[in-house]
Amino acid sequence: MHEPSSSAKPWAGRFNAPTDAFVEAFTASVDFDRRLYRYDIQGSIAHATMLARQGILSDAERDAIVSGLEAVRERIDSGAFEWSIPLEDVHMNVESALTELIGDAGKKLHTGRSRNDQVATDVRLWLREEIDLIRAAIARLQGALLDLAEREDETIMPGFTHLQVAQPVTFGHHMLAWFEMLDRDRERLADCRRRMNVMPLGAAALAGTTYPIDRAYTAELLGFDRPAENSLDAVSDRDFAIEFTAAAAILMMHLSRFSEELILWSSSQFGFIELSDSFCTGSSIMPQKKNPDVPELVRGKSGRIFGHLMGLLTLMKAQPLAYNKDNQEDKEPLFDTVDNLKGSLKVYAEMMREVACNRARMRAAAAQGFSTATDLADYLVRKGIPFRDAHEIVGKAVGLGVREGRDLAELTLDDLRGFSNAIEADVFTVLTLDGSVAARDHLGGTAPAQVRAAIERARARLAGLGMSDAR
Amino acid sequence: MHEPSSSAKPWAGRFNAPTDAFVEAFTASVDFDRRLYRYDIQGSIAHATMLARQGILSDAERDAIVSGLEAVRERIDSGAFEWSIPLEDVHMNVESALTELIGDAGKKLHTGRSRNDQVATDVRLWLREEIDLIRAAIARLQGALLDLAEREDETIMPGFTHLQVAQPVTFGHHMLAWFEMLDRDRERLADCRRRMNVMPLGAAALAGTTYPIDRAYTAELLGFDRPAENSLDAVSDRDFAIEFTAAAAILMMHLSRFSEELILWSSSQFGFIELSDSFCTGSSIMPQKKNPDVPELVRGKSGRIFGHLMGLLTLMKAQPLAYNKDNQEDKEPLFDTVDNLKGSLKVYAEMMREVACNRARMRAAAAQGFSTATDLADYLVRKGIPFRDAHEIVGKAVGLGVREGRDLAELTLDDLRGFSNAIEADVFTVLTLDGSVAARDHLGGTAPAQVRAAIERARARLAGLGMSDAR
Amino acid sequence: MHEPSSSAKPWAGRFNAPTDAFVEAFTASVDFDRRLYRYDIQGSIAHATMLARQGILSDAERDAIVSGLEAVRERIDSGAFEWSIPLEDVHMNVESALTELIGDAGKKLHTGRSRNDQVATDVRLWLREEIDLIRAAIARLQGALLDLAEREDETIMPGFTHLQVAQPVTFGHHMLAWFEMLDRDRERLADCRRRMNVMPLGAAALAGTTYPIDRAYTAELLGFDRPAENSLDAVSDRDFAIEFTAAAAILMMHLSRFSEELILWSSSQFGFIELSDSFCTGSSIMPQKKNPDVPELVRGKSGRIFGHLMGLLTLMKAQPLAYNKDNQEDKEPLFDTVDNLKGSLKVYAEMMREVACNRARMRAAAAQGFSTATDLADYLVRKGIPFRDAHEIVGKAVGLGVREGRDLAELTLDDLRGFSNAIEADVFTVLTLDGSVAARDHLGGTAPAQVRAAIERARARLAGLGMSDAR
Amino acid sequence: MHEPSSSAKPWAGRFNAPTDAFVEAFTASVDFDRRLYRYDIQGSIAHATMLARQGILSDAERDAIVSGLEAVRERIDSGAFEWSIPLEDVHMNVESALTELIGDAGKKLHTGRSRNDQVATDVRLWLREEIDLIRAAIARLQGALLDLAEREDETIMPGFTHLQVAQPVTFGHHMLAWFEMLDRDRERLADCRRRMNVMPLGAAALAGTTYPIDRAYTAELLGFDRPAENSLDAVSDRDFAIEFTAAAAILMMHLSRFSEELILWSSSQFGFIELSDSFCTGSSIMPQKKNPDVPELVRGKSGRIFGHLMGLLTLMKAQPLAYNKDNQEDKEPLFDTVDNLKGSLKVYAEMMREVACNRARMRAAAAQGFSTATDLADYLVRKGIPFRDAHEIVGKAVGLGVREGRDLAELTLDDLRGFSNAIEADVFTVLTLDGSVAARDHLGGTAPAQVRAAIERARARLAGLGMSDAR
Repeated sequence: MHEPSSSAKPWAGRFNAPTDAFVEAFTASVDFDRRLYRYDIQGSIAHATMLARQGILSDAERDAIVSGLEAVRERIDSGAFEWSIPLEDVHMNVESALTELIGDAGKKLHTGRSRNDQVATDVRLWLREEIDLIRAAIARLQGALLDLAEREDETIMPGFTHLQVAQPVTFGHHMLAWFEMLDRDRERLADCRRRMNVMPLGAAALAGTTYPIDRAYTAELLGFDRPAENSLDAVSDRDFAIEFTAAAAILMMHLSRFSEELILWSSSQFGFIELSDSFCTGSSIMPQKKNPDVPELVRGKSGRIFGHLMGLLTLMKAQPLAYNKDNQEDKEPLFDTVDNLKGSLKVYAEMMREVACNRARMRAAAAQGFSTATDLADYLVRKGIPFRDAHEIVGKAVGLGVREGRDLAELTLDDLRGFSNAIEADVFTVLTLDGSVAARDHLGGTAPAQVRAAIERARARLAGLGMSDAR
Repeated sequence: MHEPSSSAKPWAGRFNAPTDAFVEAFTASVDFDRRLYRYDIQGSIAHATMLARQGILSDAERDAIVSGLEAVRERIDSGAFEWSIPLEDVHMNVESALTELIGDAGKKLHTGRSRNDQVATDVRLWLREEIDLIRAAIARLQGALLDLAEREDETIMPGFTHLQVAQPVTFGHHMLAWFEMLDRDRERLADCRRRMNVMPLGAAALAGTTYPIDRAYTAELLGFDRPAENSLDAVSDRDFAIEFTAAAAILMMHLSRFSEELILWSSSQFGFIELSDSFCTGSSIMPQKKNPDVPELVRGKSGRIFGHLMGLLTLMKAQPLAYNKDNQEDKEPLFDTVDNLKGSLKVYAEMMREVACNRARMRAAAAQGFSTATDLADYLVRKGIPFRDAHEIVGKAVGLGVREGRDLAELTLDDLRGFSNAIEADVFTVLTLDGSVAARDHLGGTAPAQVRAAIERARARLAGLGMSDAR
Repeated sequence: MHEPSSSAKPWAGRFNAPTDAFVEAFTASVDFDRRLYRYDIQGSIAHATMLARQGILSDAERDAIVSGLEAVRERIDSGAFEWSIPLEDVHMNVESALTELIGDAGKKLHTGRSRNDQVATDVRLWLREEIDLIRAAIARLQGALLDLAEREDETIMPGFTHLQVAQPVTFGHHMLAWFEMLDRDRERLADCRRRMNVMPLGAAALAGTTYPIDRAYTAELLGFDRPAENSLDAVSDRDFAIEFTAAAAILMMHLSRFSEELILWSSSQFGFIELSDSFCTGSSIMPQKKNPDVPELVRGKSGRIFGHLMGLLTLMKAQPLAYNKDNQEDKEPLFDTVDNLKGSLKVYAEMMREVACNRARMRAAAAQGFSTATDLADYLVRKGIPFRDAHEIVGKAVGLGVREGRDLAELTLDDLRGFSNAIEADVFTVLTLDGSVAARDHLGGTAPAQVRAAIERARARLAGLGMSDAR
Repeated sequence: MHEPSSSAKPWAGRFNAPTDAFVEAFTASVDFDRRLYRYDIQGSIAHATMLARQGILSDAERDAIVSGLEAVRERIDSGAFEWSIPLEDVHMNVESALTELIGDAGKKLHTGRSRNDQVATDVRLWLREEIDLIRAAIARLQGALLDLAEREDETIMPGFTHLQVAQPVTFGHHMLAWFEMLDRDRERLADCRRRMNVMPLGAAALAGTTYPIDRAYTAELLGFDRPAENSLDAVSDRDFAIEFTAAAAILMMHLSRFSEELILWSSSQFGFIELSDSFCTGSSIMPQKKNPDVPELVRGKSGRIFGHLMGLLTLMKAQPLAYNKDNQEDKEPLFDTVDNLKGSLKVYAEMMREVACNRARMRAAAAQGFSTATDLADYLVRKGIPFRDAHEIVGKAVGLGVREGRDLAELTLDDLRGFSNAIEADVFTVLTLDGSVAARDHLGGTAPAQVRAAIERARARLAGLGMSDAR
């Protein structure tokens, strides 16, 4: 790092004592906000272009600034740039390098703006792009789920409530539930992106600027939908960071639920699926272990993101307008959230492509636990018995089954008629797994025909034709 | 409370031992979910109407059910209904009362549904209505802010960054910053409402039902945009609760910021405003106190709502599909969030209507703290000095002012020219508060003309013609 | 409710406009803080006793106050007391009733104190008692676990890491892990109780009082270890509430882990245990279901308590000293935390007494999954092979077993010697479950002898002779 | 980084497919857990020493291991060590380097332990040392506060409640309130340290080990109070991390409160103090700004630590025993918490040493706002008027003062007697600031004599003779 004299500080004029060295390091943000350099330069180029168009800069100054900034970007891209802690942040590091390169014109770049509106703009530009990448990563995972759902559209497994066998469902149907959860995530992020795509630049420190700037033009150059309506709000608002992190927290919560099920299903007690070796690791002491590390780690990462959400909300609680230094703390949680989200989605998409289903184990599990009891109750209703009474009759039949270790389909007709003589020989067809699944044949139901239709609709939505992308 | 025998439980058939009395109370939800009764009945009427149309119920059964449910609703409305803990929840309390009233037809109401999809539907119906009320309450507060902004569109106060005087702004401009924050809240809630307006009913316990139901018809009857696509997701999804609470947390964070400023401004050190006596209370020991209780209490309530958000996220973390009893814990935080949101918004709207501004104190405060230093720097830039150099010159002038206890406008021309001989006699016009404010004359800036234009645009948006309501 | 004129407010003198009715209800706390009445009266009696001893009250006044307060307490105990919202809180309700009863002497009770130190004292008195009850409830649950551990000290089950079968352990050993977790909770609450047992009274509003009070005497009367050292801290401190809720959150986290395991073990896939019918409920639609509602609900309640912790931390963030109205929000989360903790512990203690173990299922599960692979590696080490090499040899043997569907004990000696000829016929004794468990025979290990010794030590600690109660 | 073949993995034997490269990086922890290397090596040396004493290793093997580990530590200390991602974590990196260095003996080090108990031990060793450093840093800040309190023991400032002037206090008294808050933090961390000082080693993977280890001896070597009582608990427990982070969150909450006050007091509206230039920064646009960056940043950091606490609680929620990969996520929040705590405490201790008090501004502020109103009420009580009546009388006098813009001491005797003829000429002595402060002369009160006595007691406690260090 090169260490400029402290008079290099953009605000040194008013001060008598130099900043304490530890304080300098403690308050500097360049160690993490350097990550924003591309967006900082993108914003500065647009700003200079607008200033020139308004006659605030000359064309020559603009050209010098633009090519100077591009040179700085290349130097950073190449890894040759030396970041300076005394220059505090990415903004001053870039501007200082620019001025070194092009001289006085560089000192004019900051005309009509402040670091307050500059950093707010940088973060939005960066996050906007990351949201696009995250939405694409969600779509890839959704695609993997649809492929798996298609492959297993008739695979029968027990559906659980309270982790007790409830009713048979298909594995494909279960994957579609995950698809739906992710689809809301994708949509939620689209809403967040839309709401954040508003430009702070031009708010300057807090009140706007005395130069005749054209904010609509800068917004257009940067792909923002519009300039922010109020300068005080523009520099103090961190809603977009919180809203994004809230959407991320819900997404990670979803992944934690997927993980929980993958871990359960991979246990030898369930034995429903096998994860590929590539996504598991072993034990340093127990040679037989094959651990579902990836789902476990992702499940654990939900806590991290919930924590970031809490941190950001706390950060903003009770802050008076407009800008306070507290806000510097918004970046690290955002960066970490984005990194973990992208990593988790990527590893999940790859992992789901290689899930092997143990169809026999799933079917066998569904055949236990009286999973067709509801079908028997429905059968009785069709024979004219009110639902509540039917429910009670079946409850007693299940009680017999539990005591004698037989599932419903293993009871005799006589056994069954002991509970209700409305039961006849045709009852055994409704007690099969395939019959049970096929009978739930309405939109949203688990019948294979419905699952296939749902997959088709889902593919259309993924392709941008459906619900979540219509907006 | 009447105490039905435990065989009244909808699931008693399979059990040998009665539920422990303490366990019964510990697991029952009727103490809080009774609040949903109107929505439960609304959903049941739609369900019965659909069942009859599909031939699953006779028309006579439907009619009995509908009028029976209406009678139950009236009884509850009137306060005469006796809620029973052993009946566990609002659903069974209502259904049991219905069956008592109309006999066997009542027992048929539960055909083709489960409490799992029923409760998910009830909560959505309830929350949808509450969101509408909350959005209206936000709009009322926004209206109050616009009125205040209009009244104080030329009132000059110091704008702060880091709680240090930064630049003069108008009080009206500041109120518009608050307006913008609330406008995002209103929009965020609209997105949440749209995303949650999807009907779980028909998912039954988790897999759909064997009855030939018509979910699209029920959805239409209940004003839902569409039925949920997947039955497992429909009963296990609580995203809408979390998304709503996240939006609520951001809103309460905003109110905590408003509160912080009102409290500061009401202190004798600031003395910018006076809250109406009606919104303050006194001290039991200090006779002179007039405490800004309402803003303080609202500021404190932000923690409560952040906590509910964290609670709901934790609740859903790592839950396997489909329904688990954990989910019963979703209701109390939701109810409390809604109540506190509505109370805080209502009291804020009333309070803001009665804020008295101390214009003299505000102007005097703005006249201190070198708030026009940036204007001087901009002046120098217009005289051809690069911004960074101008900044340094002004810094030194401020240093002199600090040492001698004079603000910039109180320095002599000679003093000023000591720092740069680009400074001429016209400098004093840019150092006035009114000149400073008027000069920030672009979209989003604090110039009174811009504030008035912004108020007009804001009124149009509130009236449903603008940004946040276009969707 | 009787509605006193607003001049009944303890601070009405300075105000012109009456409090708005909605504001009055919004800011009043009597709806929830009335719960503290016994502690409020206890504190007032001690205060009056001290005032009389110091000559600030006459003995006759003290006697009138004490007997008046006792009469008020009896009226509240009996349910006959009418609480008034306009009187704001429990303190003014009690004092107003006292003055009605005994006249002017009642108006002297508030001499030398303020509601700020009064409420801080009330909450500490209340919470101190609740902590004692909670610690006793933990001890009862710990006792139930020890009984269960004793009953199942030789019951072999699979120990899991990553939810994969790892090594055999005993069920008793597992219960002792839970015991340890709870023991830390009990100890943590003891530390919290000790730290909070410091008396705020005498701090008055914030600065102390001009009366010659004797704080040490009042502290002694109320069982506090000492008066608080600093008046500003005394009225603004809510650490004890946060520390308590943090301890509660860790405790609920523990219960969520216990719950997760009980739910898993109750599933038909695991089938390790059966919960008593009394702690389960059924389904309104699936007649066969027996759902582990109690563990699920307790698991869900962890979120609620985590949320309260976050709420309280947020509440106190960045509050300037000394007292602010925000603090009124400390009570409801505390009350709810205490109620849910006590309920969860009580239901858990009862439930654990009735857990039925399916020993055969557990042993069969332990016999699968190559749970003795580590024992084979240790065997090889004893034959002189470095641990890392032994680990690799066993890994290959397990690979064969996985491919051929045989556990290690089912491989032939020739099979095993194919991986290392250090293996001899004596290997099969180390591959048995009982041999594996018995071999972990050191402090903290799972050998039944160790488990029994650990139970004895645990009983001694519970009886107050051991680690956690030595302090 | 050197890239060993994947067969270098400690568990490669059982696997067919190599770990996916991205998965490898995603699941590896060496990027952050390398920080633990000193403690990992310290633990390994103790483990090897014990193994040799028990005859499990030869003395020669032990010596080779110990000197090999010391050589590895030196290589890491010097920065020359090449960390490997494929080796996953700090443990395998160290062990692999050891084996490269000393051959087969290195492979024997892992005998009788697992990474599960190893990492739990490493983190405790590390955190134990950090807690000692943090407690010392707190003490240094407390010392700075005592010095400041001593310097300003008679400096009168307004004490605030509800941010309204309440009663005069001394600045020294206020600093002592901060001292008390920190003292509880220091004590809380001592409790946490004591509770965590229990050794997991010997728990091995989860069940203990078959080797004849002596855990008490290893515990003694490592300075632990005792070995953990239960092996399952030992590897799954992360209570210490949560308890530490909860204590850290409370400490950061305290610093956020200090920060809020420093920021307020530094504003030109208050003007009570001036922070040293070394702890402030300026503005890139507003040349006059001197911003209290350090307190603002520290205030903001409270959110970060609250978030880590929430993250860790969520991490552990509902995890089944014993070890799960989720737990790898415990380290980064812990590391970040420690770093931010230490940084914040260090910068605060230095900053507080340089706070300059503006005594005149403070006294002037105290003289406004009717801060002696309570003294007047107390005066009336001494004249025989019941406190509640006195309060009302003074309230009316204040009302007059507010209307006429005069403080109480500026009213005439006639004015005052208009409200109560109990008032006589001696009233004016009680209405002075010095009289008011001096009159609060009891333990915990703000009288300078009490402040000085409190400082002495505080110094004794800091020196380890008092309350918080008695344990």
